[in-house]
Amino acid sequence: MGQNGGMPQLRIALAQVNTTVGDLDGNTALTVEWTRKAAEAGAHVVVFPEMSQTGYPVEDLTLRRTFADASRKSVDELARRLDEAGCGEVLAYVGYLDFDEVGPRDAAAALYRGEVVARQFKHHLPNYGVFDEHRYFKPGTELEVVRLHGVDVGMVICEDIWQDGGPISALGRAGVDLVVSPNASPYERAKDEQRLPLVARRAAEAGAPLVYTNQVGGQDDLVFDGDSLVVGADGALLARAPQFVEHLLVLDMELTAGGHAADGELAGLHVRRRVLSEEPLPAYPPLTEPVISEPLSDEAEVWSALVVGLRDYVHKNGFASVTFGFSGGIDSAVVAALAADALGGDNVYGVSMPSKYSSGHSKDDAADLARRIGAHYRVESVEDMVSVYVNQLKLTGLAEENIQARTRGMLLMALSNSDGHLVLATGNKTELAVGYSTMYGDAVGAFAPIKDLFKTHVWRLARWRNQLAAGRGETPPIPENSITKPPSAELRPGQVDTDSLPDYALLDDILDDYVEGDRGYADLLEAGFDPETIDRVVRMVDKAEYKRRQYPPGTKITFKAFGRDRRLPITNSWRERKA
Amino acid sequence: MGQNGGMPQLRIALAQVNTTVGDLDGNTALTVEWTRKAAEAGAHVVVFPEMSQTGYPVEDLTLRRTFADASRKSVDELARRLDEAGCGEVLAYVGYLDFDEVGPRDAAAALYRGEVVARQFKHHLPNYGVFDEHRYFKPGTELEVVRLHGVDVGMVICEDIWQDGGPISALGRAGVDLVVSPNASPYERAKDEQRLPLVARRAAEAGAPLVYTNQVGGQDDLVFDGDSLVVGADGALLARAPQFVEHLLVLDMELTAGGHAADGELAGLHVRRRVLSEEPLPAYPPLTEPVISEPLSDEAEVWSALVVGLRDYVHKNGFASVTFGFSGGIDSAVVAALAADALGGDNVYGVSMPSKYSSGHSKDDAADLARRIGAHYRVESVEDMVSVYVNQLKLTGLAEENIQARTRGMLLMALSNSDGHLVLATGNKTELAVGYSTMYGDAVGAFAPIKDLFKTHVWRLARWRNQLAAGRGETPPIPENSITKPPSAELRPGQVDTDSLPDYALLDDILDDYVEGDRGYADLLEAGFDPETIDRVVRMVDKAEYKRRQYPPGTKITFKAFGRDRRLPITNSWRERKA
Repeated sequence: MGQNGGMPQLRIALAQVNTTVGDLDGNTALTVEWTRKAAEAGAHVVVFPEMSQTGYPVEDLTLRRTFADASRKSVDELARRLDEAGCGEVLAYVGYLDFDEVGPRDAAAALYRGEVVARQFKHHLPNYGVFDEHRYFKPGTELEVVRLHGVDVGMVICEDIWQDGGPISALGRAGVDLVVSPNASPYERAKDEQRLPLVARRAAEAGAPLVYTNQVGGQDDLVFDGDSLVVGADGALLARAPQFVEHLLVLDMELTAGGHAADGELAGLHVRRRVLSEEPLPAYPPLTEPVISEPLSDEAEVWSALVVGLRDYVHKNGFASVTFGFSGGIDSAVVAALAADALGGDNVYGVSMPSKYSSGHSKDDAADLARRIGAHYRVESVEDMVSVYVNQLKLTGLAEENIQARTRGMLLMALSNSDGHLVLATGNKTELAVGYSTMYGDAVGAFAPIKDLFKTHVWRLARWRNQLAAGRGETPPIPENSITKPPSAELRPGQVDTDSLPDYALLDDILDDYVEGDRGYADLLEAGFDPETIDRVVRMVDKAEYKRRQYPPGTKITFKAFGRDRRLPITNSWRERKA
Repeated sequence: MGQNGGMPQLRIALAQVNTTVGDLDGNTALTVEWTRKAAEAGAHVVVFPEMSQTGYPVEDLTLRRTFADASRKSVDELARRLDEAGCGEVLAYVGYLDFDEVGPRDAAAALYRGEVVARQFKHHLPNYGVFDEHRYFKPGTELEVVRLHGVDVGMVICEDIWQDGGPISALGRAGVDLVVSPNASPYERAKDEQRLPLVARRAAEAGAPLVYTNQVGGQDDLVFDGDSLVVGADGALLARAPQFVEHLLVLDMELTAGGHAADGELAGLHVRRRVLSEEPLPAYPPLTEPVISEPLSDEAEVWSALVVGLRDYVHKNGFASVTFGFSGGIDSAVVAALAADALGGDNVYGVSMPSKYSSGHSKDDAADLARRIGAHYRVESVEDMVSVYVNQLKLTGLAEENIQARTRGMLLMALSNSDGHLVLATGNKTELAVGYSTMYGDAVGAFAPIKDLFKTHVWRLARWRNQLAAGRGETPPIPENSITKPPSAELRPGQVDTDSLPDYALLDDILDDYVEGDRGYADLLEAGFDPETIDRVVRMVDKAEYKRRQYPPGTKITFKAFGRDRRLPITNSWRERKA
């Protein structure tokens, strides 16, 4: 116990920042900037996300020795620069890629007075869903506890708090006064409902408050929601950062300093302690009440994830503007509204590409959409392009339908080459799941913003976004007609989607069970679906794998997005119906 | 020791077969057919490849409970069917997917007299290169030893022989007379040079002969070369199957029957023994000398891998014929020769698609190629299609170059839709590495046969294939002019590849170091390459990731093919030059 007789205090800052994979210089600058902010707020400790120096996930860059060496060097450099910037007295926890004689490591370092005072390697390596960490890292077995102003601070990295046993329980038995945790925990729908109880349980296991900093922002097909948390040893929520924005969360904590035991072995983990300063800080008046942000509603959360995922994909790839087909339908309308929210209407270039099968209302709705969101808009008919193909090659049926979609894809790519816009693909998860799209046609694009929304979700979000605008007294971005009319690909006269697909409400219900729920044919029968419809849907899904692999990335908002976390063999002879 | 006083004999068959992923019924039928062949050859034991019931690799099908249940059931059914077919006395080792309370398992089963007499789960799970087994399987800890005619037979599955320690050394210490090993070991260049010494070393560790059966044939982007082996306890090669063909390798073995200890624990592995029959067989006259096939030459091996990979990709996806652009250049000529070898010239549909920049020699060389390999051939100018785009959108420069490649891609897809051919992409690894190709243009196709050959390899194989034909008195398939002329994309007047790229010999040298060898900028400098050229190449490679992800699959013939085993983040800000 400290000499001031009371409980020792520390001011803690959580730096919920948006890093970029591979950008060591940029991430170093970002860390200096945010540590300076923390120092200006009077913080004694600042905690950055997992692998904040390299960004997350670094995938195969992990295996590149030159990159790992540069990452290690950047941490020493960062410690020096923090000290030069006058932040040397702030104990800063940052993440980086290490590489030692055993192999690559997902590492965190504590920086203090210009030096690296502790390094720790992640123990539990997730290898499910979007994670492939057994491929990339070797697990660590050391736990570093640093005593600052008399308070023993331990650390655990991300997955180490998601698994029972291991580092958290070892720290609990060894004794610490505070646990800090750098994370890169991707967003899933309603993830906070899992995250908060988990963090609370781990704080109890550690017998100490837990400071949980999460990455924020989009990186390739992942999006991180932030939602950084501080929880007391009793599990009470003490502070929470807002979702989907960069934020410095600062709070004062009164801590119990235990005078804990020396180094030792616990369940295969080695605890090592280092003293930076023994004396507790003189008592000081704490800040006003810390921020406890409310989680967003389901729709707002998903919309934000898609906006942030799209914005960061475009910007981190060096683009400023996007282009895609404005068809008048619901999918392109929702993509347009997302793009306007992400980049501003002035960076959205809509193209109407009518063929002889396009209806009058399609063209009107597309023009209306552009006006509502303030997008650039042009009309380029594909009739002449289609005619050359159809006449020269004598195309009919599916070949004629597909060439319409494909001439549009090529038209967009030509405009991208000429004007430097990134092309967006407007397909949704329902289409992608059943293969209802044209490769090299409507699937053309570098990013597919609503790839992870079922069709029924698209409609729900459209209504929600329009209501939000109405509530704010703004023009609803999505034309009402695009929401209410029956969906059609307009590739032949009078075509509607239900010619080829079951009703979307039914289809999405089955897909949700079959794809998300991993339920089999017999389960679907038991759930009361009609056998013929199940059979039809299941066959479409099982056959569509090749198209899915060729589809551009999109932000994952549910666990079982199609992509790396659902990878069927291409030549897949298994059909669920056989089971 | 048996009552006949001599060494007990067994006749062993290795069934080197070509299974199909997901096709439980087809693979069961295949196994019955080949076990019957083994029985007809008088074999007492037959060994199939790893996961022969499901095919390999099953990827996410592993996680599908209904599939795992069907796989388990198929093994019981297979045991029954083998007995009904009169093969019940042959001890048959097959592979399958199991699923128990711990999770999915890469399993092998021994079948005898209509029953499953042993099941064992793979212990070492590879998770590097093309393997992702930590994602898919849980490791086993039991070893099953079966006594047949007095001989104790142990088993190990694939990776279990590639790792030091574990099952093989446990079997060695427990004592066995013979080890059988089902494998699905993908082809890499000169893999036999690693495989044979390894199998020999493991036989010595086990103190018993080792029977190594490998899968053969193409499955998605992998190809398995077979090369099944039998090695004596002294490491001597006793038999070897030919590469890249299905084969039943049969040999008689004289074995030492040791009367080994009972069940027990060894280094965390539990050895369990079961007796099928104690009495050694009466002495019988052995077969003539077993086959010891010679490995193929480097060029023949690579050519065979590409032919088999292409053939199985086309057939296992339900296609019979292929179409692609015949440009007159070396890449499409080599793809055409491969396709003719794989499918027959009559199943190859070449299309010449000249634009106004196409040279006269290109059209002549393309027509010559078609005649040489007996392919169908048509000429479809893209001039009219290109004109509509260029005039309507006023395209110039890169946009105009790309639209030529893209109208060709769309033309091929239209023919595929009309006539049912699978489209091949003709790009090579050099182009793919540096991004010298047009997305939705020359990258269009379901399969890219030479995706894993550097440009200099393409030339070398072309010469080799022509010499092979000449040596056989056949027409060399590849026009000499396609081999000798300077490569050009012919997308603008007088264009040659060296306008945009270093000389291919130099470029491939750098790529080999940078991509295959994982060497960094400093290493490349030290190797004597010019700094500006290194910088130029490294920047191209680091920027081309997005294109590589959109490229169709191709057969992997070296370890570091671009694809799943080299996956950079798409928004990759790291540039080697910075290191």
